[in-house]
Amino acid sequence: MIYLDNAATTRPEGDAVEKAMHFLQDDFFNPSALYREGFAAHKELEEARKNILAHIASAADFDLIFTASGSEADNQALFCSVSRGNIVTTEGEHAAVFNSAKELIRRGTDVRFAKLNADGSVNLENLLSLIDKNTSLVSVIHVNNETGAVNPVGEIAKQVKLKNNKNLFHSDGVQAFGKVPFKLNREMDLYSVSAHKIGGVRGAAALFFKKNLHIRPLVCGGGQEKGLRSGTENMFAIKQFEFAAEKKFSSLEEDFRKIAEINRYFRENLQPDIFTILSSPQASPYILSVSAQGLRGEVLLHMLNDEGIVVGTGSACSSKNRYSRVMLACGLSEKAADGVLRISFSAKTTMDEAVQAVEIMNRCAGQLAERMR
Amino acid sequence: MIYLDNAATTRPEGDAVEKAMHFLQDDFFNPSALYREGFAAHKELEEARKNILAHIASAADFDLIFTASGSEADNQALFCSVSRGNIVTTEGEHAAVFNSAKELIRRGTDVRFAKLNADGSVNLENLLSLIDKNTSLVSVIHVNNETGAVNPVGEIAKQVKLKNNKNLFHSDGVQAFGKVPFKLNREMDLYSVSAHKIGGVRGAAALFFKKNLHIRPLVCGGGQEKGLRSGTENMFAIKQFEFAAEKKFSSLEEDFRKIAEINRYFRENLQPDIFTILSSPQASPYILSVSAQGLRGEVLLHMLNDEGIVVGTGSACSSKNRYSRVMLACGLSEKAADGVLRISFSAKTTMDEAVQAVEIMNRCAGQLAERMR
Repeated sequence: MIYLDNAATTRPEGDAVEKAMHFLQDDFFNPSALYREGFAAHKELEEARKNILAHIASAADFDLIFTASGSEADNQALFCSVSRGNIVTTEGEHAAVFNSAKELIRRGTDVRFAKLNADGSVNLENLLSLIDKNTSLVSVIHVNNETGAVNPVGEIAKQVKLKNNKNLFHSDGVQAFGKVPFKLNREMDLYSVSAHKIGGVRGAAALFFKKNLHIRPLVCGGGQEKGLRSGTENMFAIKQFEFAAEKKFSSLEEDFRKIAEINRYFRENLQPDIFTILSSPQASPYILSVSAQGLRGEVLLHMLNDEGIVVGTGSACSSKNRYSRVMLACGLSEKAADGVLRISFSAKTTMDEAVQAVEIMNRCAGQLAERMR
Repeated sequence: MIYLDNAATTRPEGDAVEKAMHFLQDDFFNPSALYREGFAAHKELEEARKNILAHIASAADFDLIFTASGSEADNQALFCSVSRGNIVTTEGEHAAVFNSAKELIRRGTDVRFAKLNADGSVNLENLLSLIDKNTSLVSVIHVNNETGAVNPVGEIAKQVKLKNNKNLFHSDGVQAFGKVPFKLNREMDLYSVSAHKIGGVRGAAALFFKKNLHIRPLVCGGGQEKGLRSGTENMFAIKQFEFAAEKKFSSLEEDFRKIAEINRYFRENLQPDIFTILSSPQASPYILSVSAQGLRGEVLLHMLNDEGIVVGTGSACSSKNRYSRVMLACGLSEKAADGVLRISFSAKTTMDEAVQAVEIMNRCAGQLAERMR
């Protein structure tokens, strides 16, 4: 099988699983416990926090809490950081931010959605025009999970703060962390990341936040995670996340170049009379959206599946909807949106796999187009 | 080491880990994905839901969603099931319910706390007196996590519904599930359980709910778990939970009798001039709270730790507070509350371990008492 749906989830990094395994069954103790083994677990937890933080932030300016998923981190940023004024976000957000924003509207909050450029990045002018003195939170996705469009969130945060320096700036960095070179700057307040998109196991994710920022808990209880996220800490998932992130960051630039080459191979060798490349050349190389216009993406997906090629259609999270909300917001017609496939890579993807996948995609799409005539 | 802090967390069941392991690295696919492997993951997820549900509920009346922790399930029950009127709960709740209730007070909800009997069970008369026609939710813990006191929640729910049949009844069943014989009856609406207290790994838990009950999501996003809990499903943790629960329920009554014997051994052989037994004889045998009056529980805990005996002091979650809120609510003096140790068993605890532990506890407490003179 050639697995090309890494934006949905990645195969957990084997070395990191092995290294974390003793936290599952041997050192399984509760980090809140007062005995030596509990204290040792607590130390390991803090070590994970420090190491994951260091990859993209200065410990002088930022801290983080562990959550169970990127969605939970996004929800906490939206529901638990501000409670007044209006919120500005974009039409290109992952469902975890977008549907949280919709829920805030239901609760009476004024939420404004900035329009997208054709490649899925946010229209900055439109975004800035929505911010006023009552804006309390701006949330902009870092790398769009369907098109791979990169929003330069560090720069955007600066411009947002020039417009209103009182509001908070959050970014969903789930598809950026460990893949795209990036550091948090001081204009950013909140940043969500997830383990299972970079070879981590599910159950670990994090919300980075500016030190001294007042956040409220989304999950109340025993007061773990600085009182901001209760529940016994998932040590196995957190340590495995630490080790997987370490691996990703140690070869981030090298992997980026390799994946960029693989991405280019797809762009240059997919049959242009069948496949329209939707992702812009400036997008994250890890995500490549294409439209096999006139064909149904889902039918093509199943044909490819039979040939051992696994790709996605838009976001796995929105796979129940026929048309992708984000693709339509990019200005795609319903007809083109119907034929969208999302090809997404991991550092493990090889050029050999790319060559095979492209050949099979061209062949299957050609056969399907033939049948449709 | 003799591990007697199983109410804080248990060592994950090895067989269940092994059986679930292929969901971690081989069948790691996203259950929302449209290709064959995603669909297979989805089927496994539904299989886990069905099997876990069947242990305590009829599929005709109940359904469940998976959450990442018992705390999250409790939070969803409290924050996302009702939104009007008053809420009635007890002074004996786990922090996940108690602190959620406190947060509801902060948001303007009228929350009423029922008093406890000396053994930590709820005073039923007091509870019923707090319910009126505006009560929308009643939440009563099933097995208290510090004293082991069992609230007959099925019976309590019936009486609650006689008083006001419009409100919902929730119970935190985290310390009961898989340990105490029990089935959900139709007067119960919501029930929280957690994997890692019964040999499951962390990252899986569940909120049972009456079919057709309207619950809102605590975590919004991609709409997983019937739209009620977003985030990519943690298949490894969920399947391991399924297998661990299967094992626990297959020997529940046998284990219960064995642990009751072990519990009795502690009660009968701990030095009565040093240790006061706090848990009532009717408590869950899995939890035994004792007070070494005049001694500091924490000091004794460390002495025992040096001898290879691991016990807790009250709830691991509240280990930062010197006195347990629940113990004080049971009417314990601060002096007695200071000397509290929680001894908690799992089905793996043996009588041999009990004999050794009791001998060491008597010896260490004797030495400590000697030193204090």
